[in-house]
Amino acid sequence: MKTRRVKIVGTGKYMPSRIVTDVEMDSLLNTPKGWVLKTTDVASRHFATGHETASYMGARAAEDALEAAGLTLADIDCLVCASGTREQSLPSTASLIQKQLGETMSGVPAFDIDATCLSFLAGLDMMSYLVDAGRYRHVLLVSSEIASVGLNWKEKESAALFGDGAAAVIIGPSRKEEASVIVASSIKTYSEGAGLSEIRGGGTRIHPREHNAETADDFLFYMNGQAIFKMASKLLPGFVDELLSFSGWRMEDFAAVVPHQGSAMAMRLMRKKLGISGEQLVYITPNHGNTIAASIPMGLHEGVMQGKIKRGDRVLMIGTAAGLSLGGITFVY
Amino acid sequence: MKTRRVKIVGTGKYMPSRIVTDVEMDSLLNTPKGWVLKTTDVASRHFATGHETASYMGARAAEDALEAAGLTLADIDCLVCASGTREQSLPSTASLIQKQLGETMSGVPAFDIDATCLSFLAGLDMMSYLVDAGRYRHVLLVSSEIASVGLNWKEKESAALFGDGAAAVIIGPSRKEEASVIVASSIKTYSEGAGLSEIRGGGTRIHPREHNAETADDFLFYMNGQAIFKMASKLLPGFVDELLSFSGWRMEDFAAVVPHQGSAMAMRLMRKKLGISGEQLVYITPNHGNTIAASIPMGLHEGVMQGKIKRGDRVLMIGTAAGLSLGGITFVY
Repeated sequence: MKTRRVKIVGTGKYMPSRIVTDVEMDSLLNTPKGWVLKTTDVASRHFATGHETASYMGARAAEDALEAAGLTLADIDCLVCASGTREQSLPSTASLIQKQLGETMSGVPAFDIDATCLSFLAGLDMMSYLVDAGRYRHVLLVSSEIASVGLNWKEKESAALFGDGAAAVIIGPSRKEEASVIVASSIKTYSEGAGLSEIRGGGTRIHPREHNAETADDFLFYMNGQAIFKMASKLLPGFVDELLSFSGWRMEDFAAVVPHQGSAMAMRLMRKKLGISGEQLVYITPNHGNTIAASIPMGLHEGVMQGKIKRGDRVLMIGTAAGLSLGGITFVY
Repeated sequence: MKTRRVKIVGTGKYMPSRIVTDVEMDSLLNTPKGWVLKTTDVASRHFATGHETASYMGARAAEDALEAAGLTLADIDCLVCASGTREQSLPSTASLIQKQLGETMSGVPAFDIDATCLSFLAGLDMMSYLVDAGRYRHVLLVSSEIASVGLNWKEKESAALFGDGAAAVIIGPSRKEEASVIVASSIKTYSEGAGLSEIRGGGTRIHPREHNAETADDFLFYMNGQAIFKMASKLLPGFVDELLSFSGWRMEDFAAVVPHQGSAMAMRLMRKKLGISGEQLVYITPNHGNTIAASIPMGLHEGVMQGKIKRGDRVLMIGTAAGLSLGGITFVY
């Protein structure tokens, strides 16, 4: 696999102002006191309200990443929204983010990439080839997610997991003297599991006009956590072995592993199965929850901010997504 | 710009079985006899019904493209759905197409790219870099659109334009002795025009639960055709000049020009403004209408089928999209 001379030059995030604690969640879900924290390990998550649309949050995260990178919007020549949810049916959320950034006549190409929870990984993977080939210099990847609006409050186990928020990552060319590179990446989709987590409605198959009391659940998130877990844990070890062999690295070579924060339980078992140490793991579930595709770039951002990920470090980002897909990227930060 | 040694190895399409003539459209829209044909030049379009979901149509178009390419599904190592509409809110339509193809445990990566009507162009542009770099060998791009479900029948001018259907294109590496290459590509987004064509609802900003008699229009396609036309005709000449200069070609060098079939009127004025001859133009509006992102690959497919596009020919694909975006690709077929 071609090594891409691409560097992550800046990361940023935006968290909605409303914090929902596990105590409030217990009350919203009608669960016994302590149930949410015990079941999910999510002590607090954020829910977007009012002006905090996906494009608003995405634009704020982008500004945060620009500042970290020491760049301005004029340096960005491509804007990709890599999210599992979207703000409107049409046009792309990326266009709306460009608008929120006030760059309405910049001409910077703006489009969306959707691989549900792995959208950021898929976007980074693809765009790294375009940066490596010199097509774009600095690509702004934004994952902005509002999970809260689609939760099914009767499905307590899944509703308790999610949070809203946005993360942004800017990539650019890695100079000759820099160690930063993207080494290997892999995405695999097994649609045998396509029905295991889905929102059936809202697209062309079940139009919103069909929403009523009886069909309401079609427009909410459905997840068969146990079946996903069973399928993922069967496929993940082989997937990771292959990714590591593409990279020429072993698990212990990574300074940090940034997993999709699907659920605390899934991560615990993944850690054990893949031999990831507590020191390596970037774990942001307790104060973020599962923020869909924003989860991995948020973990990356937190890892960088907390000094867990330093220049020259080898990093693995990995996760599973609705589809059912597995994805991973290995890189030198 | 890097020339990509990538070849279009096969194209295919699927048209839904229900044909809606201009006469039926006049009656559906309550317009005088002959109005639809005169205004849109669409004598017939197809509307999907029953089992003809986006993934079903996409899978059938994919099979058609595989046959044309002399390949089987086992040769495909990436599946991209490049559409402006989606079948479900979650997961990606690409996963659902993989499922419809019966390849549920293949592991072939499946994800969506959305640049509204330019989704296919954006997908081809991006994926050509990955094929050129050897990441994937054969990529299956599918654009499958059901416009009919989101039409606003009170907005006769726009409702009369659209049709449903799917197109598929397989790309692969171009061998040394082959002339096929992708020469140049460009996408530009001006979100100043983001509100000029949109479906405001259906995403996280206006959830389907908010659908009622008063909000119904938020979940239907809105288009300010005149304003789009004004903006696009201002931006298009400079955009095309730049694309041609990237390519080192002049407009008269192309054997065929495949435009997005937005509307007959827009194409007439584009032809005039850009100096595209009637011989060069691939014009499929009369029996397809505007099939959103499927429009350009359908035009490509028809051009190939009708012998208008032959191996070694220089081809330009070009269009505008909600966003507002402009896009173009020049290549040797």
